[in-house]
Amino acid sequence: MAGNTFGQLFKISTFGESHGPAIGVIIDGCPAQLNIDLDFIQSELDKRKPGQSRITTQRKESDTVQVLSGIFEGKSTGTPIGLLIPNEDHRSKDYEHNKDVYRPSHADYTYDAKYGFRDHRGGGRSSARETAARVAAGAIAKLLLKEQGIEIFAHVASVGKINAPNLEDLSVAELLELREDNIVRCADPATAKQMIECIDGIRKDGDTIGGKISCLVKNCPVGLGEPVFDKLHADLGKAMLSINAVHGFEYGSGFSGSEMRGSEHNDIFINDGDAPRTITNFSGGIQGGISNGMEINFTVAFKPVATIMHNQQTVNAAGEASEIKGKGRHDPCVVPRAVVIVEAMAALVLADQLLRSKTNRVS
Amino acid sequence: MAGNTFGQLFKISTFGESHGPAIGVIIDGCPAQLNIDLDFIQSELDKRKPGQSRITTQRKESDTVQVLSGIFEGKSTGTPIGLLIPNEDHRSKDYEHNKDVYRPSHADYTYDAKYGFRDHRGGGRSSARETAARVAAGAIAKLLLKEQGIEIFAHVASVGKINAPNLEDLSVAELLELREDNIVRCADPATAKQMIECIDGIRKDGDTIGGKISCLVKNCPVGLGEPVFDKLHADLGKAMLSINAVHGFEYGSGFSGSEMRGSEHNDIFINDGDAPRTITNFSGGIQGGISNGMEINFTVAFKPVATIMHNQQTVNAAGEASEIKGKGRHDPCVVPRAVVIVEAMAALVLADQLLRSKTNRVS
Amino acid sequence: MAGNTFGQLFKISTFGESHGPAIGVIIDGCPAQLNIDLDFIQSELDKRKPGQSRITTQRKESDTVQVLSGIFEGKSTGTPIGLLIPNEDHRSKDYEHNKDVYRPSHADYTYDAKYGFRDHRGGGRSSARETAARVAAGAIAKLLLKEQGIEIFAHVASVGKINAPNLEDLSVAELLELREDNIVRCADPATAKQMIECIDGIRKDGDTIGGKISCLVKNCPVGLGEPVFDKLHADLGKAMLSINAVHGFEYGSGFSGSEMRGSEHNDIFINDGDAPRTITNFSGGIQGGISNGMEINFTVAFKPVATIMHNQQTVNAAGEASEIKGKGRHDPCVVPRAVVIVEAMAALVLADQLLRSKTNRVS
Amino acid sequence: MAGNTFGQLFKISTFGESHGPAIGVIIDGCPAQLNIDLDFIQSELDKRKPGQSRITTQRKESDTVQVLSGIFEGKSTGTPIGLLIPNEDHRSKDYEHNKDVYRPSHADYTYDAKYGFRDHRGGGRSSARETAARVAAGAIAKLLLKEQGIEIFAHVASVGKINAPNLEDLSVAELLELREDNIVRCADPATAKQMIECIDGIRKDGDTIGGKISCLVKNCPVGLGEPVFDKLHADLGKAMLSINAVHGFEYGSGFSGSEMRGSEHNDIFINDGDAPRTITNFSGGIQGGISNGMEINFTVAFKPVATIMHNQQTVNAAGEASEIKGKGRHDPCVVPRAVVIVEAMAALVLADQLLRSKTNRVS
Repeated sequence: MAGNTFGQLFKISTFGESHGPAIGVIIDGCPAQLNIDLDFIQSELDKRKPGQSRITTQRKESDTVQVLSGIFEGKSTGTPIGLLIPNEDHRSKDYEHNKDVYRPSHADYTYDAKYGFRDHRGGGRSSARETAARVAAGAIAKLLLKEQGIEIFAHVASVGKINAPNLEDLSVAELLELREDNIVRCADPATAKQMIECIDGIRKDGDTIGGKISCLVKNCPVGLGEPVFDKLHADLGKAMLSINAVHGFEYGSGFSGSEMRGSEHNDIFINDGDAPRTITNFSGGIQGGISNGMEINFTVAFKPVATIMHNQQTVNAAGEASEIKGKGRHDPCVVPRAVVIVEAMAALVLADQLLRSKTNRVS
Repeated sequence: MAGNTFGQLFKISTFGESHGPAIGVIIDGCPAQLNIDLDFIQSELDKRKPGQSRITTQRKESDTVQVLSGIFEGKSTGTPIGLLIPNEDHRSKDYEHNKDVYRPSHADYTYDAKYGFRDHRGGGRSSARETAARVAAGAIAKLLLKEQGIEIFAHVASVGKINAPNLEDLSVAELLELREDNIVRCADPATAKQMIECIDGIRKDGDTIGGKISCLVKNCPVGLGEPVFDKLHADLGKAMLSINAVHGFEYGSGFSGSEMRGSEHNDIFINDGDAPRTITNFSGGIQGGISNGMEINFTVAFKPVATIMHNQQTVNAAGEASEIKGKGRHDPCVVPRAVVIVEAMAALVLADQLLRSKTNRVS
Repeated sequence: MAGNTFGQLFKISTFGESHGPAIGVIIDGCPAQLNIDLDFIQSELDKRKPGQSRITTQRKESDTVQVLSGIFEGKSTGTPIGLLIPNEDHRSKDYEHNKDVYRPSHADYTYDAKYGFRDHRGGGRSSARETAARVAAGAIAKLLLKEQGIEIFAHVASVGKINAPNLEDLSVAELLELREDNIVRCADPATAKQMIECIDGIRKDGDTIGGKISCLVKNCPVGLGEPVFDKLHADLGKAMLSINAVHGFEYGSGFSGSEMRGSEHNDIFINDGDAPRTITNFSGGIQGGISNGMEINFTVAFKPVATIMHNQQTVNAAGEASEIKGKGRHDPCVVPRAVVIVEAMAALVLADQLLRSKTNRVS
Repeated sequence: MAGNTFGQLFKISTFGESHGPAIGVIIDGCPAQLNIDLDFIQSELDKRKPGQSRITTQRKESDTVQVLSGIFEGKSTGTPIGLLIPNEDHRSKDYEHNKDVYRPSHADYTYDAKYGFRDHRGGGRSSARETAARVAAGAIAKLLLKEQGIEIFAHVASVGKINAPNLEDLSVAELLELREDNIVRCADPATAKQMIECIDGIRKDGDTIGGKISCLVKNCPVGLGEPVFDKLHADLGKAMLSINAVHGFEYGSGFSGSEMRGSEHNDIFINDGDAPRTITNFSGGIQGGISNGMEINFTVAFKPVATIMHNQQTVNAAGEASEIKGKGRHDPCVVPRAVVIVEAMAALVLADQLLRSKTNRVS
């Protein structure tokens, strides 16, 4: 109940603090005989790791993954897969000066209030460093999905007020190539350039900026998602909202759908050879909480990172007025590194619902 | 795993189809000795029931709740509370003509694809009628929260492009009075008038329109919500996204937060007598997934209802082109009746997290 | 967490008190398209119902099951199946005289201590009447298992010190015929006669007697059960121990296995055509927590029913010495009615593990 | 669902294989601010570790525990506690000769059948080495229980047909001293001597022998355990049956209770100062699935270890008749090392139910 577990059948439990010896994840429920490509897991982690470009934090972590269990002769055994990522560059002393003060819009105060004390070093468990464990687990979920042909792609849809145009209808491989061609991870090169300039300026100001990530899922089979509470988009929404700094989620027509009429919004079915498909896709690939075979798409809104290089007023644990010094290392904008986290959480939801769908019918 | 259960400690399981004998809910985990006010439960159901005004569907259901178990001498016993709501006005024949065709943007096709067949009468389990069971359970959650002083209020924030202004800082009792004073359930009387006119026009067109509901929670204690996956806003998001027709969720600064800088967005702490509070509340009352004692606020986007009174093209189960006749009864806009569903789901999340918080610390 | 739910994928939630309006069960996770034979469900309930013979309690309940949801045109829809069993003969007044006293070896004191009060009428939720809901759900589980050829059979293995010999190797159909041919439900006619005489004598004494039920599962496929915590026999053990009055569980060699040497106890594998089988079966059909294709067998020990027709000393809620009058209706021996409960719980465990096994391997 | 998680609120997930790099456990739900005594955890592991005396396997493992997360400045933080136990002496080559053959009464065949292949080195995940992770987690559960005064004690009650007399009514400290004074871990010195002689003989024969462990819990508060499915003894039963080699569980009067009359078996209440207590304790401290404040007691039956030093006939993965050579290292009798595993699993159940009991009542 303490909330460090995600998924029902493809279930992960993460552990570890920002400045402890390691973070890691246990995956329980990965089916046996899945080929596990460790290089792929590492390459996913590399997309999230700090220090990868000038627009990310300069903390240095190789984020090298170690296998503790559950893989034998290159395949999953059906037993728990344990993955460990040692922490390397944990300058705990950077945080000594903030030990007793509550950093604005961080979790310092709420952790103290909830638990009576906290591991203050780098945010402890509340640090986004925990998401490395999700990325490692999500990589294995992606390998499982790939066997079914399911592909996931996310990219940076906006930084501040700079919005990317809608993606052209390209293959996931083509989209990935466009995205990885720039350090902000936006698949539209012209927009990417503007975004990078924006973040560069923000960084020089010692400030931070929010952004949005959009994600799509191709080749999702019809029938994933459970009616009522565990609707596919409800599970996706929870997954995304559980990522640090996320403040909003929408799928299909999203918030703009609330301004539309039914006669515009309804997705008309046509017959496309072997299965129905819809002419429009305001449903975002999900109807009644269940995938309908169309492309799934959703967007996730991230607030600006709370750690800024300005001095800020606050209070300390004793209730006294205090000042936070703006120093240390930080990400001016979180979305370039969060793209792979969004993909990982989407993969975890889909892998879980894929397994759940195997018991929907007799025989 | 089949997704009809919500909550961990305050856990509900709903059952029932739109046109079966009844719908209902089992609440497992309601603490013993809670005073159960059956009139309150019924009054909540009355706010959701069909036929309550000219801008809702004209299906006639009294939605009278029956207690099956778990309440003794007016109090919860600690054992499962069973609540039953018989279906009364189920004109199944209204649906015979659509038995084999897939209604656009409904769950007909996805249910058939998932389960191999479906109860086609009124959408069966995919009908929003299921939410009556949630409202009944949510009413009991509200009674539990009320004992702690926690209050929940939702209202219609928009219909189509008509947006209500931000709510004035009134008590929940005052807000409720303003809201219940009009049939669209918007706490701003001038906006309410426009919304009703809009819906009246939509209804005459045989069309439907989307809208948004905003919700706030007052007097929430500090410390609710679990770090990492079960963050308070992640649980709220999932709860809202599991409601029929919801396409988006945001809390605090939400999507607009993605356009802001950290230096604007950070909520500065000040000392407010016995506890820290923040000057602004872009965090929406939640930091690191845990309530910080400020007002919690979030907004939910609903797509337009898919059932319209127009003829629409579609395909049938055999894959042939077909036409859906626009006839029967429908809601031109779902948000007036959904206000109490949003509140119910919020109450269920908070009740669950309230119970979960009781085990956070030794002693 | 309040413990009224059983199973992970084939999941049941029971509700209802002995003297409330009804008891019932919600089954969530029954796969779609299972043919539901309502007569079979009723015939199972008839084997558990009170008043069926002179050696059971004389409370009169028809235990007629009503379907609330989840079944359409004779088949499961994949959505929750709701089953209701109204209470008919609830003479609550029989219990008024015991309202404030704690009946020995009942749950009166522990419920009061846990919840602060209790529904004292007939034991409320602690009554074995709750097991009728399990039998109804178990009947549906049996229908699911039957599609795979899996058969379950239990009978009374002992009453007091009267023990039945080991069962001959007959088909389940033959065993059932032998068992249902006598009111004590022992498949050995000679022993059954002795058991009935014993219970008749006990009943005349106003006393009660314990007994044992043994159960076997035929045609269980290899591979059911999860390693480590959810071993097949661990789930079976929990299921059985959750039945009222059960004090012990053993499978395979059971307690006597603790006296054996490895060289005697090891089950030697031989090749039996298409799969390995073992010459002996001390493993009880389960190795490493996973079914091995041999017959599964286990035994369940029931204490004597606590309600006796003698006056007994006790204390009341105020802590004062009191006397319980021996009057009312009671079962002199619970095992004849419990046979079908044991089968139902076994069926629920197997149905759950059958569904779980569908996700063990990729593809 | 893959069954490597135990507990609801005090929840553990174990991982690791016998011959992989390490085994370990994640504890999610340990309340914050618990003082964590690492020396105590290690001392518990030392009681289970191999090679501790001449009557255990000679595999050499120091079983040194490492903390990965969740403990800060000597206290639990409320976040997941990760514990790692590296494997040291894993002579995988010892198992090469048995790679393709199915060892009798081991899990080789069932794992292969379930997963399509297996990690054959030392039984992989099916090895009792996994229980070291449970002991580490159980030690933390014991620390939590100790804060409430709850004490757990288990010892060897039988080896083969040698049974210890009932324990005298001593304190847990005294019992522990008696038990740890001999290598077989029986609190009755005279019986211990016989048991050791018996095991010595068995070992020389290259054979193994079964045994029983009995466990008692002192100072358990009234009210632990949930009615219906999660009865305290049902959870204890499942916990025990999930331990490798366990074939039976009984509590209170157990199997012998099935031979008794209600008039003998009923535990008569008397007033003992501030609370009711019972004169006898056939209920084993649990009534209606809920602790009643009396001493809880139960017994667990272990089959003889399957690995013997004799050659045995079997079949291999190709279905051919084969012979297993009796060589390597093994435990002639598992119960001396299993005493602390029984205690650990009991502690995990009680810690979980203790946390669950905190939400039973309003306020």
